[in-house]
Amino acid sequence: MRDKDPLVFYFDFISPYAFIAWTQVHALAERHGRALDVAPVLFAAILDAHGQKGPAEIPAKRIYTFKDAYRKAHRVGLTLRPPPSHPFNPLLALRVASLPMSDDARRRLIDALYAATWLEGTGVETKEAVQTIATRAGLDGEALVRAAGEPEAKERLRARTSEAVTRGVFGVPTLVADGEIFWGTDGLEFADAFLRGEDPLPRDLPWKDIPASATRRALRS
Amino acid sequence: MRDKDPLVFYFDFISPYAFIAWTQVHALAERHGRALDVAPVLFAAILDAHGQKGPAEIPAKRIYTFKDAYRKAHRVGLTLRPPPSHPFNPLLALRVASLPMSDDARRRLIDALYAATWLEGTGVETKEAVQTIATRAGLDGEALVRAAGEPEAKERLRARTSEAVTRGVFGVPTLVADGEIFWGTDGLEFADAFLRGEDPLPRDLPWKDIPASATRRALRS
Repeated sequence: MRDKDPLVFYFDFISPYAFIAWTQVHALAERHGRALDVAPVLFAAILDAHGQKGPAEIPAKRIYTFKDAYRKAHRVGLTLRPPPSHPFNPLLALRVASLPMSDDARRRLIDALYAATWLEGTGVETKEAVQTIATRAGLDGEALVRAAGEPEAKERLRARTSEAVTRGVFGVPTLVADGEIFWGTDGLEFADAFLRGEDPLPRDLPWKDIPASATRRALRS
Repeated sequence: MRDKDPLVFYFDFISPYAFIAWTQVHALAERHGRALDVAPVLFAAILDAHGQKGPAEIPAKRIYTFKDAYRKAHRVGLTLRPPPSHPFNPLLALRVASLPMSDDARRRLIDALYAATWLEGTGVETKEAVQTIATRAGLDGEALVRAAGEPEAKERLRARTSEAVTRGVFGVPTLVADGEIFWGTDGLEFADAFLRGEDPLPRDLPWKDIPASATRRALRS
């Protein structure tokens, strides 16, 4: 009998929702006896691929998103403190988190990078910050930051981001379970039901074939 | 002593999430002894105002949104059946729902229009459909459809949509309680806590003043 496929968790440090989901997703995978494939992706590139704006790019939505994330974090016992700037450049942190290492090391590293971003308010934008955080997590921070600058490290992040887009991922966090995608912190609850075999969704949903009968342009009056 | 302000519920028939919230929001208002100001708005115009795409306008997100809404509806005991087309033109239904009438009549009318859209799968896009639904709800369907074509009816919908944008509404459903906005079906839970005086949010959130240190363009590599 084939082992069950791993769950894939797509995330970016930029998203407080991805942080909240990160704190919950390991227990979810363990409950269902699944391995967890941890996939750093560049959210900005996913937005680009879908011609979409991120919540931080719509002024009215930006402040609401912070408040909503604060409330959702509070619900799971976390007190958010935002980074010094947002949106910030997450590339170095994402590339470091993408480097080859043991599952255990990667989890400690991402824990520490996320804590610096969303709990400690110090941020992960500079080489110095990332190096210090990685070292504090028990890794060789200097070597990791150096390796993250290599072309292979950049390519690794690009490849996982493209893979996400190809699978239909349009936001972070996204958990993919047996080909089904689950988006956002809400998504985890539905993924849990899906993995228990209790997804209420009928198998033959005809909804992708529903035609559109109006466009936004036609509604302008 | 001044009465407590009404809660304002902004919605469009186009959104299954707004339908789910509609089925919950009356009980929420009653729990807190608040009147409910029911405000039909054109979601497409709100998207326009923020230069934003709706979930149905991003192919990867469109089908996910239907699935997610189905699961969220199931959680509150509803089985969604989508309308014959989507996105559809909701203008007539919104204008009818905006006409002057008693609170009770408006609630019955919106219940019936929403049921036709998201439970019965028959839709609310044509004059015939809207008239039949209104008549079935015990109202004068013919008179309502005629009144909805008048300039004042069109202006009434436009005015509430503009009011929503001015208040920072960026999506539907949105509930506004004492100036605080709560978006989506999740938002109702947080609005409930807010109205109980149990919003965990610190009063002095400094987040609107956090600077951006990266833009998407700068991240393209």
